[in-house]
Amino acid sequence: MSTTPTAEHIRGVFQRYCELVTKGDFEAIANLYAEDATVEDPIGSTPHRGRAAIREFYSRSIGLVHLELEGRVRVAGREAAGAMIARPTADPKMRIETLDAMIFDDDGHITSMRAYWSQDTISRD
Amino acid sequence: MSTTPTAEHIRGVFQRYCELVTKGDFEAIANLYAEDATVEDPIGSTPHRGRAAIREFYSRSIGLVHLELEGRVRVAGREAAGAMIARPTADPKMRIETLDAMIFDDDGHITSMRAYWSQDTISRD
Repeated sequence: MSTTPTAEHIRGVFQRYCELVTKGDFEAIANLYAEDATVEDPIGSTPHRGRAAIREFYSRSIGLVHLELEGRVRVAGREAAGAMIARPTADPKMRIETLDAMIFDDDGHITSMRAYWSQDTISRD
Repeated sequence: MSTTPTAEHIRGVFQRYCELVTKGDFEAIANLYAEDATVEDPIGSTPHRGRAAIREFYSRSIGLVHLELEGRVRVAGREAAGAMIARPTADPKMRIETLDAMIFDDDGHITSMRAYWSQDTISRD
């Protein structure tokens, strides 16, 4: 039987994701994903496929930004999207406005994450 | 030669989209879309395909909400996403938090729009 994870669960994963990215805990981040998940960050780059490749991607890029949600995560069934603001730890006046779209499986794991950001969404206070 | 519409153009379309939805100008909204575009609103519903079907969809649902952007539109190449707040004209204390993801063609028209909202994103002031 197919079940859809609850909106509450999905919003919790977004919140936890931001906390774990800020903390730099790439093992725990990889465990939010399904085994065969894909990460396209930013959109337009080659997607990372599978939990091992995803762990490797975060291990290289993580712990370097403070990430927080901007506004409420919008949940539509098993898909959701949330605007976020990332500030590099080494340069906290830099503001990267990003937005992650995620798809979830029946177990509540992320099967796809695509991040909307580019040079255009970077500014300085 | 393939060209990507500028981030400025894309952000302008999001702004204009909100204004036209609020105004109820469904002809002008349909003209923001490419001939063979699709609209899935909300995500999970059957997509409307083609400009005629899209015009018909908006003609039924439009002019009934005040729609505005929440935060900045995130542009990544020819894709972009923006959080929005919709308030029904007949019930302005109702707040529908939505988020539209759009893809653009070389001419700067929308080829795909998918809207993230559900019962979960509706609240009252």
